[in-house]
Amino acid sequence: MRLSFLLGPDIKQILKEDPDQVRELLDELHAEDLADIFSELDSDEAAALLARLPAEDAAPIFERLEEHEQEEIVAQMPTEHVAQIASEMAADDRADLFNSLPEAVGVELLESLQRVDPQAAEEVREIERWPDTSAGHLMNTRFVIVSLGLTAREAMASIRTYASQNDEFVYNAYALQGDRLVGVVSVRDLIVAEPDDRLSDLVRSHIISVPPTLDQEDTARRMAKYDLNAMPVVDDQGVMLGIITIDDIIDVLVQEQTEDVQKIGGIEPLDVPYFQTSFLSFIRKRGVWLVVLFIEEFFTQTAMRHYDYVLDAIKGATYYVPLLISTGGNSGGQSSSLIIRGLAVGEIKKGDWWRIFIRELGMGVVLGAMLGFIGMLRVLMYKDQSFKFALTIGLTLVAIVMTGCTVGSMLPLVLKRFGVDPATSSAPFIASLVDVLGIIVFVHVAKVVMASVLAGAHP
Amino acid sequence: MRLSFLLGPDIKQILKEDPDQVRELLDELHAEDLADIFSELDSDEAAALLARLPAEDAAPIFERLEEHEQEEIVAQMPTEHVAQIASEMAADDRADLFNSLPEAVGVELLESLQRVDPQAAEEVREIERWPDTSAGHLMNTRFVIVSLGLTAREAMASIRTYASQNDEFVYNAYALQGDRLVGVVSVRDLIVAEPDDRLSDLVRSHIISVPPTLDQEDTARRMAKYDLNAMPVVDDQGVMLGIITIDDIIDVLVQEQTEDVQKIGGIEPLDVPYFQTSFLSFIRKRGVWLVVLFIEEFFTQTAMRHYDYVLDAIKGATYYVPLLISTGGNSGGQSSSLIIRGLAVGEIKKGDWWRIFIRELGMGVVLGAMLGFIGMLRVLMYKDQSFKFALTIGLTLVAIVMTGCTVGSMLPLVLKRFGVDPATSSAPFIASLVDVLGIIVFVHVAKVVMASVLAGAHP
Repeated sequence: MRLSFLLGPDIKQILKEDPDQVRELLDELHAEDLADIFSELDSDEAAALLARLPAEDAAPIFERLEEHEQEEIVAQMPTEHVAQIASEMAADDRADLFNSLPEAVGVELLESLQRVDPQAAEEVREIERWPDTSAGHLMNTRFVIVSLGLTAREAMASIRTYASQNDEFVYNAYALQGDRLVGVVSVRDLIVAEPDDRLSDLVRSHIISVPPTLDQEDTARRMAKYDLNAMPVVDDQGVMLGIITIDDIIDVLVQEQTEDVQKIGGIEPLDVPYFQTSFLSFIRKRGVWLVVLFIEEFFTQTAMRHYDYVLDAIKGATYYVPLLISTGGNSGGQSSSLIIRGLAVGEIKKGDWWRIFIRELGMGVVLGAMLGFIGMLRVLMYKDQSFKFALTIGLTLVAIVMTGCTVGSMLPLVLKRFGVDPATSSAPFIASLVDVLGIIVFVHVAKVVMASVLAGAHP
Repeated sequence: MRLSFLLGPDIKQILKEDPDQVRELLDELHAEDLADIFSELDSDEAAALLARLPAEDAAPIFERLEEHEQEEIVAQMPTEHVAQIASEMAADDRADLFNSLPEAVGVELLESLQRVDPQAAEEVREIERWPDTSAGHLMNTRFVIVSLGLTAREAMASIRTYASQNDEFVYNAYALQGDRLVGVVSVRDLIVAEPDDRLSDLVRSHIISVPPTLDQEDTARRMAKYDLNAMPVVDDQGVMLGIITIDDIIDVLVQEQTEDVQKIGGIEPLDVPYFQTSFLSFIRKRGVWLVVLFIEEFFTQTAMRHYDYVLDAIKGATYYVPLLISTGGNSGGQSSSLIIRGLAVGEIKKGDWWRIFIRELGMGVVLGAMLGFIGMLRVLMYKDQSFKFALTIGLTLVAIVMTGCTVGSMLPLVLKRFGVDPATSSAPFIASLVDVLGIIVFVHVAKVVMASVLAGAHP
């Protein structure tokens, strides 16, 4: 970003005056930095410049732009030209492009691509067959295929031919029998091997792969666990469909993490960065949850009204309600964050719920007792408050923190059990739930501890 | 995990009866899966088995264990033997091991390593020179060095020699002049080149690198941006110190994300997984924040007590306090999550604060108006509540949601400005802050709208 900020204005000027210089810049700058500069242009300028570049130079820049930028540029460029650029893009980036375009535009572009590059069009269809967030949708359908009968030297020659024709390149070659994957050999193993060694002796047949239907988050976790740079996608017949590369996995990790943070914050996940999200879309994505939480919180008012005969009978009781219920919410939010993250990284399994319940209950008792003690001291600082009331506040805090910890830790597990993303049990959602429970707990503790004071109070 | 679960018991039995079979298993299973199985053993069993393996077979298993597991095993094994295993570990994993050990143990082990493998000991010292979460601490200090005068064929021969002697291998060779990095060439480029091509014509001299002092999160972002599998670490003199590989970057991304989720949830980040965190350490890490938030929340009680002349004069007013202030907290939590994540992925810069302020203020007005309308309807459903009170609730909601959105969005930026991790401005922290502001807003709106009702009310 800094580079584009420093060079942006100058380069924009050069590009406008003499667009042919972009080709020279391509040699000097990383395509990623050029993409940053293109991001700063208006979409019509960017489209005009890209159109003047040969497709093989335009593709590496275009494929690095944000989805919404690509969409704007596509709208300003003849379909035929977009198809030419698409034909030069990496297969997975190309599929992403089709995915983000409005359907009508995508259909037209695919027809055009079919004429320009039938193989690329076929690859788009193959990848689009699989669900949006699956391994199949992440994969690249081009890879180096070798036969088990080759020698190391011959395999290296195949790799050389492939690498000189394809931009996307991975340091593995895949041995197929028919369409079925039977072995993997790394370029490293080929380099170390004697040139006349047979591939059949070099390949590894214990292959770590994923099925095309596997969720992208699980795919990412698997690849990260084994420290792989590329992983084959293999269907249930053993047929190799493509490879997933580590750069896509990093994008998945970052994207899934963004969604989790937004859900935990009580927002429907945004699809695009903060500044690209339209005002209206924000109102929708935030408004839904705010309204749900607001209505959930109605019950605090209903509960307080319902128990007014208790709250009114104890001087100052209502003033402690926000303090008490927010403490329940805070402890619940802590527990839910711990469990949501533990589930996301695979440290915690659904079956652990019983151990977690016991742990959180214990933590609730200890943390609640700590806060209860502080709370009692606080009440006793007021000369006009009774010891019984202080005790009520103290015991309520123990009960409320226990409630918060158990509800906060169990809800994500329950959601997971029912196939809902655990991150949906956001901190505010748990807080609202615990708020209502907190009022009920408070009133009932008071009824027991302050029974003599409340003797005359009735609904 | 599943594999170890299925095979674990059987393999444990085999390992106990005939540990020599581990070597055969090594060929069959990925070291990662073997590490899973070792994780399920008691630390004394694991130590005994590892001790019976040759160091070069033990190292790939040992380096994949969790830090606390390594520490337990080290405590049960002769230092001399740990040093032999350490000598076979990848340089970065080895440095991590020393990092996690108690200082006295580390010093003794380093002396032992010095005798077994002086180069490895030197590498540990080199990496430990740099701060814990810096690029220097992540790097591996071994890499392929080539001279610019070589041909492609000669460079491949150097790479072959290196790869046959080192487990950790990256598909790049680095051209140095003296100690200074002057060019990078990928194995792919060497494969595609003619064997007699000169390296001086093949290397790229525009090198994307990081300084050793760069924070690991920024290092990860840089590497992800350029889709690199390995990136050199270069000091301010241009001297090449090591390389960072993509697998370490994935670990960084996952670790930093876990810390963010925990901070957003109002917990001091844990260093180890949920079930490995001791009860006491949980009490400390959760208790600190719960107490801070609890004391922060005292002010809601103080504020309500301070304004009791207003709250008491309006029938049922106190019952609406939890509803009103939690809505402020929810909107604030949404804004802070958005900004915290935007800062973490680099979409948002500190300088954007003014644009964000305007946006969030606008969103606060619209979202507040929506909720205010619903809130008014709710109040009017009660026959005993006046229209003026309904209007008070409605207007208070607009003001409170505006407050929540602006405070929630600005606080992470302010923290970042002062060098504090923005994720510290957790949702509960913002909620507690907004709770107090909410009560003050409520009372002052009521004073204006319900002036006639409150005419007789005085402190």
